Amino acid sequence: NGLVLVKNPHLDLMEEDVLYHLDLGTKTHNLPAMFGDIKFVCVGGSPNRMRAFAQFMHRELGLAGDGEDVADICAGSDRYAMYRAGPVLSISHGMGIPSISIMLHELIKLLHHAKCRDVTIIRIGTSGGLGIEAGSVVITDTAVDSSFQPRFEQVVLDDVVVRSTELDKDLAEELLACSRDIPNFPTLIGHTMCTYDFYEGQGRLDGAFCSFSSEKKLEYLRRAYDAGVRNIEMESTAFAALCGLCGLKGESCPFHLL
Amino acid sequence: NGLVLVKNPHLDLMEEDVLYHLDLGTKTHNLPAMFGDIKFVCVGGSPNRMRAFAQFMHRELGLAGDGEDVADICAGSDRYAMYRAGPVLSISHGMGIPSISIMLHELIKLLHHAKCRDVTIIRIGTSGGLGIEAGSVVITDTAVDSSFQPRFEQVVLDDVVVRSTELDKDLAEELLACSRDIPNFPTLIGHTMCTYDFYEGQGRLDGAFCSFSSEKKLEYLRRAYDAGVRNIEMESTAFAALCGLCGLKGESCPFHLL
Repeated sequence: NGLVLVKNPHLDLMEEDVLYHLDLGTKTHNLPAMFGDIKFVCVGGSPNRMRAFAQFMHRELGLAGDGEDVADICAGSDRYAMYRAGPVLSISHGMGIPSISIMLHELIKLLHHAKCRDVTIIRIGTSGGLGIEAGSVVITDTAVDSSFQPRFEQVVLDDVVVRSTELDKDLAEELLACSRDIPNFPTLIGHTMCTYDFYEGQGRLDGAFCSFSSEKKLEYLRRAYDAGVRNIEMESTAFAALCGLCGLKGESCPFHLL
Repeated sequence: NGLVLVKNPHLDLMEEDVLYHLDLGTKTHNLPAMFGDIKFVCVGGSPNRMRAFAQFMHRELGLAGDGEDVADICAGSDRYAMYRAGPVLSISHGMGIPSISIMLHELIKLLHHAKCRDVTIIRIGTSGGLGIEAGSVVITDTAVDSSFQPRFEQVVLDDVVVRSTELDKDLAEELLACSRDIPNFPTLIGHTMCTYDFYEGQGRLDGAFCSFSSEKKLEYLRRAYDAGVRNIEMESTAFAALCGLCGLKGESCPFHLL
């Protein structure tokens, strides 16, 4: 029926659900009235960029006013920023798997409480490209970990649960088709590698610590490329796993910044 | 000689070091002039709280002016916020190990380039307590992972490197002694458990997904308590490991919020 699934029997027994890091709650806010008509959720790391994206969507959708004064729905919390433009919600998630995971748990509950239907979620934001033109967008078919495996290892209490990181193939093709209507918009479908670290984990030579040579770095990145990886970032495996669990149609297509 | 160590032979060969997420750099900023006299760095997740902490330090140190208009040194980036009050730097690190790691790599390089000496770094911020009074401060002797082990597993390219998570015992005792001078300020020394997830990883029953019972949760938290854990948060193992590597005298003493 297109609703967003939560998989937690304890939630039904709770009198109130406080979405703490979003500064929203089921008793303090009328979530169905505020969010019931949301059809698209776009997420990215940086709060300023997600504000600019909401302003852009406001103009693209031809909504009333210039959209410059779009309000931060989570203004009472400085953990995340959230804006809306018509049926599009634009939310920042900070950097890394733990940060995006907290946001996604609370977003999924928000969409569930608001009784939203047929929601598509897309991760935008930036990534580092591998052997591709600067400025390219990589639409992720599968998110992989630092060993190029399509899995997300989630620690539940002290057990490790392995979750699938497949994304929606039809949505990927649809987004690729959209990109073809725009001139000079290099776009491709490929694997996205997700790491827990920006410096040592992604083969950067300019962190405070670096124990590997330039050759060892290149050899690793070459193996990643041969395994189908076309870009590297820090959220996609958790994004894919959590979207998959709750039945949200999700796609990750970060922009290759440099 | 009290200087902050970087362990990266590539850095000496670089003409410029851009501390990208801090919006600072060795060619664009005179880092020794801006930061050479810094002696304390306090870090925490929330940018608003770190601003309030800088204002508090400004008043405590009796600096000129009321400190209300303290400027964000990283204003050109929305990834982190940084303020200073005399010899104290106050920086936000967002939520989770990946987010604090990026900040620490760039902070360690900043302190190195600025030729700072004898710097003490303290993580403040919040945590969840285990069997302790609400409002308590836990000074961490050792940060442990979700299996209660004193280790931080860092993926370097695709190798796993295990790093020590011991913190400075003398500093811990010194901070505990300070707390005794303040009436009604419950403070203790204990282990801090660091997880990659706020909901499933910390035994919360109110995430979007929860596959365990209330009994299973309590059994896990009881085992954590028996292993010496007194609070749970999401950054301490990486904090302890990176401080240890660069010779920074570090301590984590988050506040037990609820």
